Amino acid sequence: MHSRVVKTVESDLPNIGIVGGLGRMGRWFTEFFERAGFSVMVSDIETEFTPRDLAAECRVVILSLPMEVFPDVVADIGPSIPEGSLLTDLCSLKQAQVRCMLEHSSCEVVGTHPLFGPAEDDMSGRRVALCPGRGKRWLSWWEGLLQRYGALTTVITPEDHDRTMAWVQALNHFILLTLGKSLEDDGIDLKHIKELATPSFHMQMEIVSRLYYQDPELYATIQMSNPYTCRTLDMFNQHSESLKDIIKRRDRVAFIRLFKEVQELGRMLTMQEQ
Amino acid sequence: MHSRVVKTVESDLPNIGIVGGLGRMGRWFTEFFERAGFSVMVSDIETEFTPRDLAAECRVVILSLPMEVFPDVVADIGPSIPEGSLLTDLCSLKQAQVRCMLEHSSCEVVGTHPLFGPAEDDMSGRRVALCPGRGKRWLSWWEGLLQRYGALTTVITPEDHDRTMAWVQALNHFILLTLGKSLEDDGIDLKHIKELATPSFHMQMEIVSRLYYQDPELYATIQMSNPYTCRTLDMFNQHSESLKDIIKRRDRVAFIRLFKEVQELGRMLTMQEQ
Repeated sequence: MHSRVVKTVESDLPNIGIVGGLGRMGRWFTEFFERAGFSVMVSDIETEFTPRDLAAECRVVILSLPMEVFPDVVADIGPSIPEGSLLTDLCSLKQAQVRCMLEHSSCEVVGTHPLFGPAEDDMSGRRVALCPGRGKRWLSWWEGLLQRYGALTTVITPEDHDRTMAWVQALNHFILLTLGKSLEDDGIDLKHIKELATPSFHMQMEIVSRLYYQDPELYATIQMSNPYTCRTLDMFNQHSESLKDIIKRRDRVAFIRLFKEVQELGRMLTMQEQ
Repeated sequence: MHSRVVKTVESDLPNIGIVGGLGRMGRWFTEFFERAGFSVMVSDIETEFTPRDLAAECRVVILSLPMEVFPDVVADIGPSIPEGSLLTDLCSLKQAQVRCMLEHSSCEVVGTHPLFGPAEDDMSGRRVALCPGRGKRWLSWWEGLLQRYGALTTVITPEDHDRTMAWVQALNHFILLTLGKSLEDDGIDLKHIKELATPSFHMQMEIVSRLYYQDPELYATIQMSNPYTCRTLDMFNQHSESLKDIIKRRDRVAFIRLFKEVQELGRMLTMQEQ
């Protein structure tokens, strides 16, 4: 039986309730809020408090849940959250999640997607997407708090968020998995691959290696739940077939035209960074 | 009219001839040898010396040439290089190139592939592949010299080299170009992509951006001249189709099995680095 309530001297800070607070991201945010001086109540499997307790007690309710169980918990506790409170979540997708929170509540709603995992030391320099749902007061409090601790926040609609994530997460993971599976299937000597890696491919191998630390279940959900994934994967596969044809028929003119288009995109990506 | 002969005090060092010495890589290696105290003779379009002059005068002849003109130059000067000299090259592919050098010469032959571009400051930490062709004396001199200046050398057969390069260069560039072209075609807001990039996708975008500094002509040749490219691209495209099917039919079991296979590969890649 676990439970935790941390009281602090600053009694004017809203108390925070983290549903799923014993998961890896839940613990991360519990620690974040405690360090920042907030009272934190946690519910999870086998905790003293239930999600309904948190809904009744806390001004800020944060859902740190697997996307599979998310809708049931929202339907269960959403209606009992007071209008003046904030309901937010930490899911990797936002369109269905924000819609679900709005549907089952009358409180303020913000969708939150921390673009980092629980292995990070602190909030500094980390990216966080915020999707406004209902109300502005808590949104500005939440964004201000994250920024104060060094987060780079982006306010974006749930639709644009998910559409962007179809590239940043779904397609990215798709490419890494396809590359890794192909390497494995070919049976090429990985020692040679490492020894002869250009700086560019060395980075690519580093990204593949990072998958080692990720949760396959979460990655499956991200791939299969984003409504924009299939369209993005189709587009990638069509372009990869057509580039393969260009290479097979040794069409240098078409190859160089495409190369220069992508160079221009690369230039724009670099410019935006400055 | 350009020409250059640098004489040094150490007269027992072999003199170096760089054919194509006014190109970007040619200049890089000219500077490298001069700093190391060698005499360097250079031939290029409109230089005083011709490739044949270098073949006759220099103990070490380095071909820094576009792969398109490479066979003609080798056929022209190979037969006149004395048996006790070294003929080497800097091409990105090695199987056809080493075969060509062997065919037209009786001197010692080594295929060299510097796995870096002329933007690098020096040899320190850079990777260089060496493919033995004929003779061992110059191979060990060349490898020793590169290592003394910090290069990480790998001795590999021309076949294994090109097979590895089909992944490290051809498939890598193929993926980056397909990703870039798809992003451009979709018209998704690059600002969102940058703002919501995970650390993993941020690295991926950085690799795409690097293409901006590369030579499209060289990349076209690398894609279209490596005999192992088509096989590798076919394999990648087959796996990308089959992974897309897994995702479309929401087959979590198959997805997670594949994910774990790639995680195991990632673990092996990480282990080899240590």
